[in-house]
Amino acid sequence: MTTDTPLKITEKSRVKRVPKRAAYDRATVDAILDAGILCHVGYVIDGEPYVTATCHWRHGNRVYWHGSAASRMLRTVTGGVPVCLTVSHLDGIVLARSGFHHSVNFRGVTLFGQAVKIEDPAEKLQALKDFTDRLTPGRWEELRETTDQELKGTTVCAMEIDEGSAKVRSGGPIDDEEDYDLDIWAGVVPVTTTIGAPIPDDRLKPGVAEPAYLRAISIGQAEKS
Amino acid sequence: MTTDTPLKITEKSRVKRVPKRAAYDRATVDAILDAGILCHVGYVIDGEPYVTATCHWRHGNRVYWHGSAASRMLRTVTGGVPVCLTVSHLDGIVLARSGFHHSVNFRGVTLFGQAVKIEDPAEKLQALKDFTDRLTPGRWEELRETTDQELKGTTVCAMEIDEGSAKVRSGGPIDDEEDYDLDIWAGVVPVTTTIGAPIPDDRLKPGVAEPAYLRAISIGQAEKS
Repeated sequence: MTTDTPLKITEKSRVKRVPKRAAYDRATVDAILDAGILCHVGYVIDGEPYVTATCHWRHGNRVYWHGSAASRMLRTVTGGVPVCLTVSHLDGIVLARSGFHHSVNFRGVTLFGQAVKIEDPAEKLQALKDFTDRLTPGRWEELRETTDQELKGTTVCAMEIDEGSAKVRSGGPIDDEEDYDLDIWAGVVPVTTTIGAPIPDDRLKPGVAEPAYLRAISIGQAEKS
Repeated sequence: MTTDTPLKITEKSRVKRVPKRAAYDRATVDAILDAGILCHVGYVIDGEPYVTATCHWRHGNRVYWHGSAASRMLRTVTGGVPVCLTVSHLDGIVLARSGFHHSVNFRGVTLFGQAVKIEDPAEKLQALKDFTDRLTPGRWEELRETTDQELKGTTVCAMEIDEGSAKVRSGGPIDDEEDYDLDIWAGVVPVTTTIGAPIPDDRLKPGVAEPAYLRAISIGQAEKS
């Protein structure tokens, strides 16, 4: 599920460097968010910046993340303060004929907003189910049930997908016209995220079959190199 | 080159959640920094957090990054303000027998400090050479020379590796003892970064051979899964 409303372009979110690589439409933004497992959450404590890597997931018009209720990051970001969330994928190393025009192919989203804590236990459980079933659909129902204590010890927060931008670079190097005649190799070395074959736990109960969804996990890939 | 001086453990940098996964020794920290191409730089403008993904490289006791001299991020971080730099690698999805014990295998470093702008043109050129030769050793000497204008248009900054922490998780799920008897698949789905075969530029001059260093790029891998 996505929406047709593009991200708000503000003084904070407008891409100023190489604006032709910017996008604000939700199809682009959501595809980049959904291709990632790790995001980086930025927040401020006593005027100083902190960046924490954590797992995120999207549901409709919100991006979610979670962790221990004791986490400094979660206690901070759910306190009504400004938050910056980024998701970045490196897709390739772009080798040009001059150092200056070297680049990387990438897809990135930056979102600005405020995070809210999901207080309702049923809503919180549903969010955790969304998180699990996002990568491994059907797994949540197979798992041992979450206890009340576990749920209490977990903070789940959500931020509206509202203000921000995407930035995408793909394709080969763009050199100065006079440099194309040089005897220098130029092109792209692709970088991809690969999901490997599942490794069963040493203590896996004998006879437990590998669920089919494990071989179907597909994430992190660019649509084209 | 590394150093034996561990990172400074301060109220900012001390890992409070799951401290057994924390490390402060430079061998661990440097290996994580060196395994990454993209970092996330956090900074504050008007009290609000910003996180920018950019390429980094390490040389001795400093981590460097660069960009356009017009970049808002670079103009901000070289202004004597606090900066947070993170490098994160996702190594696996850890599937436990309960939702609560699901996790990810990862390697991450967070550094705190202030960035300085490299003003001296020779030092700046050397830093850019280090950046290029880090992934593709010998390439800098093959390239068309950097012009004075290109150098002026580029800001390179550096931050001492001094205060911060590393956090590493590896291995299988850790379940509650009574859950090991459940008929639920558990284990790890590995996630790796893969460097692909080079794709020559459409306008590559005929007869230019693929340099050997392109097939030797090795980055992003965990030492063990």
